[in-house]
Amino acid sequence: MKLNYKLWLEANNQKMFGDGPADILRLVDKLGSLSKAAAEIHMSYSQAWQLIDKLEKKLGFKLLEKQVGGVAGGGSTLTKKGRILMDTFLNFRSEAKRDLSRLEKKYFTDNFKEKLKK
Amino acid sequence: MKLNYKLWLEANNQKMFGDGPADILRLVDKLGSLSKAAAEIHMSYSQAWQLIDKLEKKLGFKLLEKQVGGVAGGGSTLTKKGRILMDTFLNFRSEAKRDLSRLEKKYFTDNFKEKLKK
Repeated sequence: MKLNYKLWLEANNQKMFGDGPADILRLVDKLGSLSKAAAEIHMSYSQAWQLIDKLEKKLGFKLLEKQVGGVAGGGSTLTKKGRILMDTFLNFRSEAKRDLSRLEKKYFTDNFKEKLKK
Repeated sequence: MKLNYKLWLEANNQKMFGDGPADILRLVDKLGSLSKAAAEIHMSYSQAWQLIDKLEKKLGFKLLEKQVGGVAGGGSTLTKKGRILMDTFLNFRSEAKRDLSRLEKKYFTDNFKEKLKK
């Protein structure tokens, strides 16, 4: 047996931000476009757009900014608040991952497995 | 926004043990009976029994032992392995809770909320 977990931010018992949105924003930031980000995770552009739109409405602020024109013919970048939310969540998530891995090793390894076998 | 999470043990991508079973076992241990434990969390005895039965089949060992007769007219106690699994999970969960609360304070409090308001 191994440990698994989900971590997310909520308000009024409603999920507000978690792994899915954080990963999409990270890809938009890397690739400069929501359609490229969506393709990377095998999501349609309209699904990704709806997800972001719904999320922005819940949060009450914009996460993405459309870049009109230019050499690349548009694309999306993160808003200041979108970046703060993404960065904070990703930093939190990697520190939580380290802590939970340490606890998994402490509680659920050899000694534990051995005791359940006997 | 506040942090929320779920922690569980899995094997072969299948959920094996988590909050629900841990809480039921803790109540059986406290109350000495599965029907009393079920009542405490507004679950029917047959639902609770099915949950435990399914779990024992997945785990490959018994979690509960029926006590036949006696003054109380039967009841259930935890098997040795049931107790090891429950205790280990509960100890892990409370240490994880402390760590995650500390990280929530570090990442998602005043400074974070202030930045998203501006």
